[in-house]
Amino acid sequence: MKVAVVGASGYGGVELIRLIEQHPSFELRAVFSSSQPGHLLRSVYPHLDSSLVFKEMSVEDLSEADIELVFFATPPSVSSHWVPSLIEQGKCVIDLSGDFRLSNPNTYKSWYQKPAAPTKYLNQAVYGLSEWFQQEIAISPLISNPGCYPTATLLALIPLLQEKIIDPSSILIDAKSGVTGAGRSANQAMLFSEVNENIRPYKVDGHQHIPEIEQFASLFAQTEIKVSFVPQLVPMSRGILVTIFAGNVNNYTNEDLYDLYHSTYENTSFVRVRGRQWPETKFVQGSNYCDLGFYSDKRTGRIIILSAIDNLMKGAAGQAIQNANIRFGIPETSGLLFPALYP
Amino acid sequence: MKVAVVGASGYGGVELIRLIEQHPSFELRAVFSSSQPGHLLRSVYPHLDSSLVFKEMSVEDLSEADIELVFFATPPSVSSHWVPSLIEQGKCVIDLSGDFRLSNPNTYKSWYQKPAAPTKYLNQAVYGLSEWFQQEIAISPLISNPGCYPTATLLALIPLLQEKIIDPSSILIDAKSGVTGAGRSANQAMLFSEVNENIRPYKVDGHQHIPEIEQFASLFAQTEIKVSFVPQLVPMSRGILVTIFAGNVNNYTNEDLYDLYHSTYENTSFVRVRGRQWPETKFVQGSNYCDLGFYSDKRTGRIIILSAIDNLMKGAAGQAIQNANIRFGIPETSGLLFPALYP
Amino acid sequence: MKVAVVGASGYGGVELIRLIEQHPSFELRAVFSSSQPGHLLRSVYPHLDSSLVFKEMSVEDLSEADIELVFFATPPSVSSHWVPSLIEQGKCVIDLSGDFRLSNPNTYKSWYQKPAAPTKYLNQAVYGLSEWFQQEIAISPLISNPGCYPTATLLALIPLLQEKIIDPSSILIDAKSGVTGAGRSANQAMLFSEVNENIRPYKVDGHQHIPEIEQFASLFAQTEIKVSFVPQLVPMSRGILVTIFAGNVNNYTNEDLYDLYHSTYENTSFVRVRGRQWPETKFVQGSNYCDLGFYSDKRTGRIIILSAIDNLMKGAAGQAIQNANIRFGIPETSGLLFPALYP
Amino acid sequence: MKVAVVGASGYGGVELIRLIEQHPSFELRAVFSSSQPGHLLRSVYPHLDSSLVFKEMSVEDLSEADIELVFFATPPSVSSHWVPSLIEQGKCVIDLSGDFRLSNPNTYKSWYQKPAAPTKYLNQAVYGLSEWFQQEIAISPLISNPGCYPTATLLALIPLLQEKIIDPSSILIDAKSGVTGAGRSANQAMLFSEVNENIRPYKVDGHQHIPEIEQFASLFAQTEIKVSFVPQLVPMSRGILVTIFAGNVNNYTNEDLYDLYHSTYENTSFVRVRGRQWPETKFVQGSNYCDLGFYSDKRTGRIIILSAIDNLMKGAAGQAIQNANIRFGIPETSGLLFPALYP
Repeated sequence: MKVAVVGASGYGGVELIRLIEQHPSFELRAVFSSSQPGHLLRSVYPHLDSSLVFKEMSVEDLSEADIELVFFATPPSVSSHWVPSLIEQGKCVIDLSGDFRLSNPNTYKSWYQKPAAPTKYLNQAVYGLSEWFQQEIAISPLISNPGCYPTATLLALIPLLQEKIIDPSSILIDAKSGVTGAGRSANQAMLFSEVNENIRPYKVDGHQHIPEIEQFASLFAQTEIKVSFVPQLVPMSRGILVTIFAGNVNNYTNEDLYDLYHSTYENTSFVRVRGRQWPETKFVQGSNYCDLGFYSDKRTGRIIILSAIDNLMKGAAGQAIQNANIRFGIPETSGLLFPALYP
Repeated sequence: MKVAVVGASGYGGVELIRLIEQHPSFELRAVFSSSQPGHLLRSVYPHLDSSLVFKEMSVEDLSEADIELVFFATPPSVSSHWVPSLIEQGKCVIDLSGDFRLSNPNTYKSWYQKPAAPTKYLNQAVYGLSEWFQQEIAISPLISNPGCYPTATLLALIPLLQEKIIDPSSILIDAKSGVTGAGRSANQAMLFSEVNENIRPYKVDGHQHIPEIEQFASLFAQTEIKVSFVPQLVPMSRGILVTIFAGNVNNYTNEDLYDLYHSTYENTSFVRVRGRQWPETKFVQGSNYCDLGFYSDKRTGRIIILSAIDNLMKGAAGQAIQNANIRFGIPETSGLLFPALYP
Repeated sequence: MKVAVVGASGYGGVELIRLIEQHPSFELRAVFSSSQPGHLLRSVYPHLDSSLVFKEMSVEDLSEADIELVFFATPPSVSSHWVPSLIEQGKCVIDLSGDFRLSNPNTYKSWYQKPAAPTKYLNQAVYGLSEWFQQEIAISPLISNPGCYPTATLLALIPLLQEKIIDPSSILIDAKSGVTGAGRSANQAMLFSEVNENIRPYKVDGHQHIPEIEQFASLFAQTEIKVSFVPQLVPMSRGILVTIFAGNVNNYTNEDLYDLYHSTYENTSFVRVRGRQWPETKFVQGSNYCDLGFYSDKRTGRIIILSAIDNLMKGAAGQAIQNANIRFGIPETSGLLFPALYP
Repeated sequence: MKVAVVGASGYGGVELIRLIEQHPSFELRAVFSSSQPGHLLRSVYPHLDSSLVFKEMSVEDLSEADIELVFFATPPSVSSHWVPSLIEQGKCVIDLSGDFRLSNPNTYKSWYQKPAAPTKYLNQAVYGLSEWFQQEIAISPLISNPGCYPTATLLALIPLLQEKIIDPSSILIDAKSGVTGAGRSANQAMLFSEVNENIRPYKVDGHQHIPEIEQFASLFAQTEIKVSFVPQLVPMSRGILVTIFAGNVNNYTNEDLYDLYHSTYENTSFVRVRGRQWPETKFVQGSNYCDLGFYSDKRTGRIIILSAIDNLMKGAAGQAIQNANIRFGIPETSGLLFPALYP
């Protein structure tokens, strides 16, 4: 299966390349980058041994190279520009940007400050939260890969919302992320000296992953949900830890929670139910796992859920490959069954 | 004024020494350490130019050295052992441990798993949250210096609780800390390779700072308060960021909050009201400041408060010196008026 | 092929386990640890999904489990205790410790302050610098895996010494290492707060890797060589950068050096000749590559060589697997052909 | 004494401001920045409590503000533009850039690729290595503050060169630096994710601090000296460790070295002679100290010297204040007598 990556020179793109190069069924045939056109991939990324050259995106190049699957790891409003013509040509697209995640175009416009993708394609897009939309992913030409924070959050929340364990009006999410999430562009705020020995809250008054979390949390809860969400940057390269607080509606115990999570995820490959062994990002670093911990606090009547992923893996490129596997009938774990790089 | 430090070889102790050596009114006369007795201070800490030698704690040495003020930066149950005889001899004590913070001995016992200090001295102890107990601190022989998390949390919460801005049953605290809070003892879990590139939740099922926060939050709210509290270790040496979520009881706006915090703290020296310029730990690193940010979120009806301190400064040694200044009628800012070490 | 790891709970051991679990031809059958006996591997290392239990080392357990290959990732004087009986039983041993690296027992004694291994086995041991002792490794029952610093240093030096490009009396080595090299034992000096924001020289007056470097440098130069060697700890988990200075004996140019290194290593799999694209440890992190850069400085008549490896991979576990592949006639790159985890 | 800082928004500039604001004799009256004109200092640097506003540099503003002393912390070729008119107006200038360090204009041109400052002013400039040019600094209108690497290197080398302890043709310098030395401009290579978990050699083929080291090393050795110099970036914000190797010409012992360094620096305030207690950057972080360690290696006949400074302090702003103190007859240590921020 011949594949291409658009936005290949950013951190999400280069992680896709790492995974594709190791994958038994995918062959990387083209890499597109608007910032590095004409450069050899291996001169920009000396750790990769590839003779590909970054090019400016063009549909013609894709067609000539006989590519069946295109990954987009691009900023807002890039994939929505290219997807229609690719879909019409029969390509399959997995989009790691936010362009096709929100079903309501007005919601997209108000959170991303950009025009939304055409409704026709929004309607075709399937949300690539692999564990929960497997059947839809398997047959869709357009898979909208989830955001990093929504992935960690929704894997933790959906079982509780489906079973009505928590009060849907009580959900608060405190999220911490390594800085690769901010991308590889030159940016004073992301200089080592500014990030090191620092914790930095940002977008406290509104992060664009909020409507994505709310849309899918509402879907599974079958009621409209609004969440509080505070993201914070911590001095590390990779990793997200999401801490979720919610009201326990019926004194569910730690054992109840364990049973629920265990039965929900026992037949999946990348969600590890940890219970009271609190997840740490180090134990998922570089891997596609999501580790879930939880605690039912009798003192306060609240449930606390902890969810750890690698933002570039299960939060981006890893889940994209997982979705590609599902889409093309390859074993879901193909090319992804390796543990964290520890320490 | 001659002073001594007990527990002088830990991170809290060595920060006290840094501050005392720079202080215009205090003279360091003795340093006690159970782990380093007999060693020169400057051989253990080459950055300090002192000819003092660590000794095993003894009341006789304190008396001979004519010491008026003793700081304890010791593990649980050490200061409660020594304080009675020191108080009887007319010394003033500032205790950075938790031994005198909880007024109810049973609460201490259940959270610290140690016997509580004698009730007589618990009753004499004044809580050294400098901005809120200034008058009591000025006349007390025994000042119980607040914990690092409670300092950051209570400075943020008290104005809201006093003015009944938030629902007292709705308080959730997500706390992130650098690792100096864990002390300087050899500990596999605190090795660089275990902490670096990691976020680690700990004591999710109960941290001993919870009853301290609840005791003083309840006092100012005039109602019993229980809080949810999740602490997390992040890969940095110094700094705490506390993120607090609470229900807004009456649609208070960002301007209302700004006015409240500003009027509350305008005559204090170390609390900086930042509003929507979100606090970052880097901007308080090495200094005694507490930076407060906040956001009234109309979407969810919640208020989010962010509070940043240096855990070794305003969260420990800095506030202890501030309390010593207050106690001895020295200007409150004496020896503490320097900015963060940035970057 | 059934294999076992002794010293499996340290950083070198756990990296071996990561590699063996991914390896197409090796099956991990037993893990031995003197510090964690009785614990489940996955409870100590939650990122690994194994049902093995750490046991105290015993030759009987090895025999029963039908193990053919034993890796030792142990402190000094452990492998020399066990190796004789294992060799006599016909097992193959790859020893990652220093016990069999020095051919002269007195040299071992004076640098390691321990008794040397029995001469009979010292004589049987082959030095596992894969690129230079391939034929010997392929047939030896006892492979002495090189130290991390010697690996990075010798891969850089041997071509220059063989071809007499540099003055053998002029070699100086400035080495920088991440802290996993110091192991996983609790150790105050390796606490995050002591290592972070710090560069720390150590063993400036003599590191035990000096005689190892000298023994093999002398062998290839066919003259006795003494080197200056200064190791330094830098605040990162993985990675070694070795900077070597040596006198250029005959005005060899950068092109000469490129040709030499290129022709030397073009048929190897893990040495990448970078020339004036200076190696960085990030580009080998988590991988088995060694990146070599160099510069012939006409101003001073010296050659500077830069060599970067991951100390746990090419500097320990990765090279051990490479040697195991060579030893058992498996393709040398088997289980090792993945790029660095970047960033 | 009224002072101004030009280039005030970079890391060197903001460190100068930190020191001036704490200084008992200097008053900061103006801050100039070409990148932040019109911005409040405290909005760019929230940790500083100043009501000054960054302005575009102008000689008129300096004159109106009645400023006597101007610090330049600017990129190459900025101070050489302004200094002539300032000197003519009788201002005193302390220049932290390289513009006045090299006495030979051709040398400047070839290493900085810019035109050199006018010879007249080059001749007036005094090199501000405080411990070695005290008398000249005390009377000069133009003090050229040393580079960070040259400061650490020359304080280590000068005693050995003066006393002819080392072979002047044998000097090799391996330098490691935190990343604040690269400045605060947005720069992809200095992003946290690129620097973290990495050691990066740079300018291996020629760093502009080489001619500065050679000029002053030659001066004190009274013979022309060429050095090898390899700088490397390590993942920390502040700190330089320089490791120097040189041939021991006459079997000088560790005791000889200790005596030499001790007698050389015993009457200075900021050079601490550590001997075989190897210097670490953490013990000088945030302070103006230079810690020197050394080892006479009998095996190789070489002397190894280790020199640690904070690049923003003794390597830039701290030494600039020290020079200002000397220049204006204030005690040399004024405003600088505080220890490292540890840990």
